[in-house]
Amino acid sequence: MEPVALPLGRPREERADAARNRAHLIDVARQMVEELGADKVTMDGLAERAGLGKGTVFRRFGTRAGIFHALLDEEEKHFQQRVMSGPPPLGPGAPAVERLVAFGRARLDFLLEHTVLARASLDTGQPVPVNDSPSLFHVQMLLGEARPDAAASGTLALQLVAALEGPILLYLQASDDPGAPDPGAVGHDLIASWQVLVESVCQG
Amino acid sequence: MEPVALPLGRPREERADAARNRAHLIDVARQMVEELGADKVTMDGLAERAGLGKGTVFRRFGTRAGIFHALLDEEEKHFQQRVMSGPPPLGPGAPAVERLVAFGRARLDFLLEHTVLARASLDTGQPVPVNDSPSLFHVQMLLGEARPDAAASGTLALQLVAALEGPILLYLQASDDPGAPDPGAVGHDLIASWQVLVESVCQG
Repeated sequence: MEPVALPLGRPREERADAARNRAHLIDVARQMVEELGADKVTMDGLAERAGLGKGTVFRRFGTRAGIFHALLDEEEKHFQQRVMSGPPPLGPGAPAVERLVAFGRARLDFLLEHTVLARASLDTGQPVPVNDSPSLFHVQMLLGEARPDAAASGTLALQLVAALEGPILLYLQASDDPGAPDPGAVGHDLIASWQVLVESVCQG
Repeated sequence: MEPVALPLGRPREERADAARNRAHLIDVARQMVEELGADKVTMDGLAERAGLGKGTVFRRFGTRAGIFHALLDEEEKHFQQRVMSGPPPLGPGAPAVERLVAFGRARLDFLLEHTVLARASLDTGQPVPVNDSPSLFHVQMLLGEARPDAAASGTLALQLVAALEGPILLYLQASDDPGAPDPGAVGHDLIASWQVLVESVCQG
């Protein structure tokens, strides 16, 4: 959606403006979530507090869920960095099976730590986006190291990501229910059974 | 939503009427799907062809997706029966690990065979309903036999069901995309990696 060819000088300025606006909106949105809670953050409220037009906020985020998606995206970048170049076992340097176990634990912790953002960023008009999960890349790579025979078709990695993220995302969507179990307990059990799953598959 | 206490005579008649209406609506809806395709089945069209009021159809199914959900439910009953009392390895009598493998294969075949109904019954305003999956009961039971230590918390069964049904449901939701892969090939790969997953976990 960036302009492809415009007179020199002006486009670069506009792109810099857009980047500044984005960073500013993200900062203001983060403050608003901390101060008011995600429930109280609206497109209009964000525009007003950021001193920007509603059109700018709308173009940037599309929907209210888009605001939280952008905030989660910033956190996601830090998470990806820990996997790509942080210390082992999450980062490179440990055996693939240990990295897979660490990855699941860190991913579940990440989603539980950012419960509010993760829930608010789930657009209930959309299916749970497992196929687009950035986890698929890492799981496929690590599984390819640990069990190249079983990883070849790609569907085993897809199934493992669904196993890792499906239950927690559904839990987050449903956790408004009065009977929903405690997130800490759910996380603890999911991490333990993820370890069983991964160790079984990698040793199989 | 059944009446709790009404004068004798009349309620029983009404319930019998309701059951007849339901069976009639299901029959007509099935005919319409076969003749016209699911895309062409509407609440109004179904009411007209069934010779019933729109209100009756609306009360029975709630939404258009509800029609297909009810049709799939009928097929689901046959599937559940095969698991509960059909021949092994899907039915009772085979070792748990073989039954789990057979269950995954049969379940994926079932969802692929009923692709049209399964897709039409997914209300895109709702999350993919893995938690409510009737599969959870069977997988938990069989896993409890094969690996009682790992099955205790219940989250491993939840993860396995997410692994089994998550990718195929997402595939069915996305299979309108022109670049979507062939369902037969997807099914074949998913069945193979489900077998790897289950055999690994049960032997672990």
